[in-house]
Amino acid sequence: MSKQQGRHFLNIPGPSPVPDRVLRAMDMPVIDHRSAEFAELGKQVFEGCQKIFKTKGPVIVFPSSGTGAWEAAIVNTLSPGDKVLMVETGHFATLWQQMAKRWGLDVEFLPGDWRHGASPTEIEEKLRGDKSHAIKAVMVVHNETSTGVTSRVGEIRAALDRVDHPALLLVDTISSLGSVDFKHDEWKVDVTVSCSQKGFMLPPGLGFNAVSDKARAASKTNKMPRSYWDWEEMLKPNANGFFPYTPATNLLYGLKEAISMMLEEGLDNVFARHKRLAAATRAAVTHWGLEVLCQEPEEYSPVLTAVLMPPGHNADEFRKVTLEKYNISLGSGLSKVAGKVFRIGHLGECNELTLLGALSGVEMGMTAAGVPHRAGGVDAAMKSLEDADKSNAPTHLKMVKP
Amino acid sequence: MSKQQGRHFLNIPGPSPVPDRVLRAMDMPVIDHRSAEFAELGKQVFEGCQKIFKTKGPVIVFPSSGTGAWEAAIVNTLSPGDKVLMVETGHFATLWQQMAKRWGLDVEFLPGDWRHGASPTEIEEKLRGDKSHAIKAVMVVHNETSTGVTSRVGEIRAALDRVDHPALLLVDTISSLGSVDFKHDEWKVDVTVSCSQKGFMLPPGLGFNAVSDKARAASKTNKMPRSYWDWEEMLKPNANGFFPYTPATNLLYGLKEAISMMLEEGLDNVFARHKRLAAATRAAVTHWGLEVLCQEPEEYSPVLTAVLMPPGHNADEFRKVTLEKYNISLGSGLSKVAGKVFRIGHLGECNELTLLGALSGVEMGMTAAGVPHRAGGVDAAMKSLEDADKSNAPTHLKMVKP
Amino acid sequence: MSKQQGRHFLNIPGPSPVPDRVLRAMDMPVIDHRSAEFAELGKQVFEGCQKIFKTKGPVIVFPSSGTGAWEAAIVNTLSPGDKVLMVETGHFATLWQQMAKRWGLDVEFLPGDWRHGASPTEIEEKLRGDKSHAIKAVMVVHNETSTGVTSRVGEIRAALDRVDHPALLLVDTISSLGSVDFKHDEWKVDVTVSCSQKGFMLPPGLGFNAVSDKARAASKTNKMPRSYWDWEEMLKPNANGFFPYTPATNLLYGLKEAISMMLEEGLDNVFARHKRLAAATRAAVTHWGLEVLCQEPEEYSPVLTAVLMPPGHNADEFRKVTLEKYNISLGSGLSKVAGKVFRIGHLGECNELTLLGALSGVEMGMTAAGVPHRAGGVDAAMKSLEDADKSNAPTHLKMVKP
Amino acid sequence: MSKQQGRHFLNIPGPSPVPDRVLRAMDMPVIDHRSAEFAELGKQVFEGCQKIFKTKGPVIVFPSSGTGAWEAAIVNTLSPGDKVLMVETGHFATLWQQMAKRWGLDVEFLPGDWRHGASPTEIEEKLRGDKSHAIKAVMVVHNETSTGVTSRVGEIRAALDRVDHPALLLVDTISSLGSVDFKHDEWKVDVTVSCSQKGFMLPPGLGFNAVSDKARAASKTNKMPRSYWDWEEMLKPNANGFFPYTPATNLLYGLKEAISMMLEEGLDNVFARHKRLAAATRAAVTHWGLEVLCQEPEEYSPVLTAVLMPPGHNADEFRKVTLEKYNISLGSGLSKVAGKVFRIGHLGECNELTLLGALSGVEMGMTAAGVPHRAGGVDAAMKSLEDADKSNAPTHLKMVKP
Repeated sequence: MSKQQGRHFLNIPGPSPVPDRVLRAMDMPVIDHRSAEFAELGKQVFEGCQKIFKTKGPVIVFPSSGTGAWEAAIVNTLSPGDKVLMVETGHFATLWQQMAKRWGLDVEFLPGDWRHGASPTEIEEKLRGDKSHAIKAVMVVHNETSTGVTSRVGEIRAALDRVDHPALLLVDTISSLGSVDFKHDEWKVDVTVSCSQKGFMLPPGLGFNAVSDKARAASKTNKMPRSYWDWEEMLKPNANGFFPYTPATNLLYGLKEAISMMLEEGLDNVFARHKRLAAATRAAVTHWGLEVLCQEPEEYSPVLTAVLMPPGHNADEFRKVTLEKYNISLGSGLSKVAGKVFRIGHLGECNELTLLGALSGVEMGMTAAGVPHRAGGVDAAMKSLEDADKSNAPTHLKMVKP
Repeated sequence: MSKQQGRHFLNIPGPSPVPDRVLRAMDMPVIDHRSAEFAELGKQVFEGCQKIFKTKGPVIVFPSSGTGAWEAAIVNTLSPGDKVLMVETGHFATLWQQMAKRWGLDVEFLPGDWRHGASPTEIEEKLRGDKSHAIKAVMVVHNETSTGVTSRVGEIRAALDRVDHPALLLVDTISSLGSVDFKHDEWKVDVTVSCSQKGFMLPPGLGFNAVSDKARAASKTNKMPRSYWDWEEMLKPNANGFFPYTPATNLLYGLKEAISMMLEEGLDNVFARHKRLAAATRAAVTHWGLEVLCQEPEEYSPVLTAVLMPPGHNADEFRKVTLEKYNISLGSGLSKVAGKVFRIGHLGECNELTLLGALSGVEMGMTAAGVPHRAGGVDAAMKSLEDADKSNAPTHLKMVKP
Repeated sequence: MSKQQGRHFLNIPGPSPVPDRVLRAMDMPVIDHRSAEFAELGKQVFEGCQKIFKTKGPVIVFPSSGTGAWEAAIVNTLSPGDKVLMVETGHFATLWQQMAKRWGLDVEFLPGDWRHGASPTEIEEKLRGDKSHAIKAVMVVHNETSTGVTSRVGEIRAALDRVDHPALLLVDTISSLGSVDFKHDEWKVDVTVSCSQKGFMLPPGLGFNAVSDKARAASKTNKMPRSYWDWEEMLKPNANGFFPYTPATNLLYGLKEAISMMLEEGLDNVFARHKRLAAATRAAVTHWGLEVLCQEPEEYSPVLTAVLMPPGHNADEFRKVTLEKYNISLGSGLSKVAGKVFRIGHLGECNELTLLGALSGVEMGMTAAGVPHRAGGVDAAMKSLEDADKSNAPTHLKMVKP
Repeated sequence: MSKQQGRHFLNIPGPSPVPDRVLRAMDMPVIDHRSAEFAELGKQVFEGCQKIFKTKGPVIVFPSSGTGAWEAAIVNTLSPGDKVLMVETGHFATLWQQMAKRWGLDVEFLPGDWRHGASPTEIEEKLRGDKSHAIKAVMVVHNETSTGVTSRVGEIRAALDRVDHPALLLVDTISSLGSVDFKHDEWKVDVTVSCSQKGFMLPPGLGFNAVSDKARAASKTNKMPRSYWDWEEMLKPNANGFFPYTPATNLLYGLKEAISMMLEEGLDNVFARHKRLAAATRAAVTHWGLEVLCQEPEEYSPVLTAVLMPPGHNADEFRKVTLEKYNISLGSGLSKVAGKVFRIGHLGECNELTLLGALSGVEMGMTAAGVPHRAGGVDAAMKSLEDADKSNAPTHLKMVKP
């Protein structure tokens, strides 16, 4: 839809590019959401979602954005005045914390520098100190879309276990699910929040809650008013493939197709691809002489890379020039890092050549905008991809049948 | 997507059939929701919505179903314990009333027989009796999707005016907007609730609130917790064409196209077409010897016709046979009228021949299911359409250019 | 694309309505026509075509209209001056005959009244008289699109066999293939000519030649100049799934999908459906008091019905009014029957309700245009369909899975 | 449709990538090709074609591949035994020459080395020697798709003029039209042959002949049998927007949209873009230490670059590895240069970043396939694009509206 010539490069960290197969699956007549045909569709997407969230429990699908799924997680499990522990990993963690406050929660918000993930150690200490179990939930963001930093959810779970704390574990996987490995059941996550427009490679419009038995039990007694987001209202008809109110039918067509694509590629291959592309991106950034915002290699995001601008240069000016000249959208720095950071998305329908096209746009955009950098970043990215290829069995390749 | 041969007839009272133009408009790559290009789209759909809702005030668009828009109307204007006056026009009025109770409202629910609209007189009496102005809102459904009865919103407004009652007027136009004339500003409606999948001819996934100044003022002081549905959070970025969280971009593409189609046809022509098709449907029903659920000719719904089954015959059995044999979906009877009523949708992308095809399916389905009826209903519908045509200047026709 | 509201009824006898599944299959990026992926596609469509033509021999697919496939049949098998026997079954037989003359053939054109198919008896007599075997080919049209009359190809083959005549049998199945049973191998047809936009339910753009060994042998020695249409040039790369020049790739995507749909429904069910809809159409026509052009019940076309206008009424005027008022396209009378006949297509993606919608348009169009007729034709058509249903095991139904 | 992950890079020199707008325009119901609505479409595409061919005369559109349009040019203007002058610029010139021979023409085929365009001087000499005007036509290929060499058609026209020779000038613009400037009227070309799947950015399935008055006069007396390709049969109904036989309707929808896109961008901008991308491609190739097949800078093709493999390396092996590893299709070497050359297409819907993605694929593919080269080619291409940008007013940019 861009007014510029040719294909637009959508390299924001979500919404991610939607594959043609998914768009075309959605481009079909709406069906009766009370029909047997719909029930079949409903069951298929619920089963498919369980594979992606790695859970045997229910996955609830709302007609909403991810923000709605945040709200659903809160209003179904907590009560006004409940204490919760959150971590300031970046802009979206901050927004979720604001939402928690709006709903009357007593949030302890561990400060962060936006360059590291949530610290399992720090969480462990806080919980250990909470002898009375006043903390009802630990709420963390798996992949901070504003910073390109992932938090180690498995280790956070281990921290909870070590201190034997009964708090619920609520995790935002909005920009990680389907791109970064995530194990709802194995990590005993209580509510996993996600949405359609990132790893699922769909247009925006669906919000998800994967729900543990413990979370569901909490929802039976918690004290938040709710109707639209109420899990039980959803789960009753969901059991037969239906919804309590009109679902976003065509997005469900797309969801079914997207899950098929993910399973055809193989989830492990999907995750490996994201890591490989992220490493190539960082190789380019480093070669350019710029700094990656994330400071902890273990926490590098596979789905986006946030890049610090050189002092004296504004990221939004650079993004504007790059968009106008090279027809590519990059993510802006948000809030605390506005103007200081730009973000390169490499998630969803992204492969080696679309990434390298995008990195070329970044490199030429820096030249056009007068941002000092060392040429050759795309070269460095290619080298990174070639090296990855050599060291790896090419499990990521699905050969064309002879 | 039906497994049966040929085009499926989607004659439930919504979701309505989506025009190819709209589906194709949606079948385009997602764009950056923070870009100048998006802002243009956002402004266009907001302006377009104002024309359809007939308001100069803001129209808020949520990524949600219509149920979400119900909730938004409540949580932005009312406070727990507030008294509201609602009218049992049918299943959906009942559901909205249940939602109101879940949110702690003190609902006075005027009983109804599901065969008449909300009575302006009765409302007037109730309000006249409310000297203390305890009633904070009157909440009515413009077109009861479960019964095919419309309520006279203009007269209800006049009733409020006559007794000079300050209650807010909240109206559900979920299945009427864009099919039946509705005047948000002229009728001084405070919140108009609607959604995408009926008169707007879109897939489900968008909810709407048109908001009066008075409603907005109420939202500044009311006491319901909210975040996702909060109007002010929406209105700030909306002013520039943006959204506070990721909007359902591709549905907005479709909304823009659908509004264009509605304005190309002309709203008055759209409304006249719905009335004409509804009259033809009733002509068929009457000829068959069946009874229309709605008992008040002034309140016949232009968007759907609910039909009473002959005693001893189950509507769902009939619908099942008809679907299997003739590839047409009809609406079921809901709740109180389950099994006793079926509903024929004739809204959105519907014209003479698609209606007559649908009515043929109903007539043959009755034969197949052994439902007693007088043959010739489709004939009667054709006669009705021919008569409408004679008596009317053919404003409904857009001639093919020579 | 019609400027009128709602779905257009395309009831010309081809191009036929294209199913959404087929349109969407075509709406995909073009692939390299020299790739392994393409070869797979090529082989799939060739194999699929063999099932539809009922042949074990090659089916050649040209990027062309059906007219091109006519030409290909001629230039690959015959030589200038060759005598051929053709039958004037209608407009298209006449056009094919003109083409044959343009290519220098000596055509004996058996006159016809446009109300009967080619007479096997008459052909037998002609061939019996041709002791010298001067006649090199018998060329007939299986389904005359201009008249709605089918010719009995099986009986014509039997006639050739009875007199043991070596002439090639070339058959135009442009508007019959995939809608009316046709057996290329069993009937020993030498060239079967067809195209994409009728029974195949595709947009126009593909022409077909199914070729017998005998025809192929003839092509080795015949004396027509040719390049584009040359079979051997095609068959060489076809053996591996490829084409000698760039094929109409996206139409091939659609062809693959259309063949899948036809086989899913079952060819016998497809043929039965066309017969059932044709019978219903004739029931309406007869009830209206109008005359079906075809005079031989055995030769009624399952794909279209040509209807004689009452004297003093012009078919094109009627068609124009009907299009403007009811958004339906009907076929015109061609050449000898221009203005005297209109044609109702009921082929390809057509089911009971779309047919009845269309017949409603015809009936109301007659009223609007002042064409005298007896009301109730749609009723009669419904009765016909109901009767067909009763007398038949419902093999045409594919039940929605429970 | 590739089985590999993510977007396929279609960098063969045609079919070129089809823009989403064009695919979606084609994804609409077929309309009656005898209707007023169709006539409007027909006229629009004919007028649009005249702008792209730069002619005031007729442009004929066949449902065919480009090969069919070659044939149409021959059979409408020449007679068996006619002498024609052709030039061996590469594989496609050779194929057209073979076709000419099949049609009984007496071809003088000026030999070439596949690395230069047709020599205006050599043509001039041949024509000067042809005192009797035995040569009836000069037939050249504007852009040799097999070699990436353009021929200077304007200079060839000047050569004809200088010797005042009456031969017709037939030009194949199959892979140049809409990408390289071409002036049918100004250069007095008699037949311009083209097709849909290159500069027009459509799927394959349409062939074009732009026809001069002189060519049309020749068609009145020439002696080739023809029917499908006959210009006069086309031009009669074309005058009213119609076709003599069923046209490829949905490709015409796409053609209308594609022409709109080309005119929105501006033809001069389209041509400049192709040149800029071609220069960048050559910069990469040269940097890699490989040789461009075309030896004459004035004749470098703006639409594709053919690259010589280093001795001892097979181009098809390289292409296979590159396709499997990086999901990109490159063109093969054809006939004389099979295995020795690969071709990079940069035409149609192609912009800076899609080109750089493709060049990255070529560079990494060489590494993967063990083809010796100097790294840094993509860098060199970026430099070339940046330099082009500096030296040029950015007429190629259509800024997003504020």
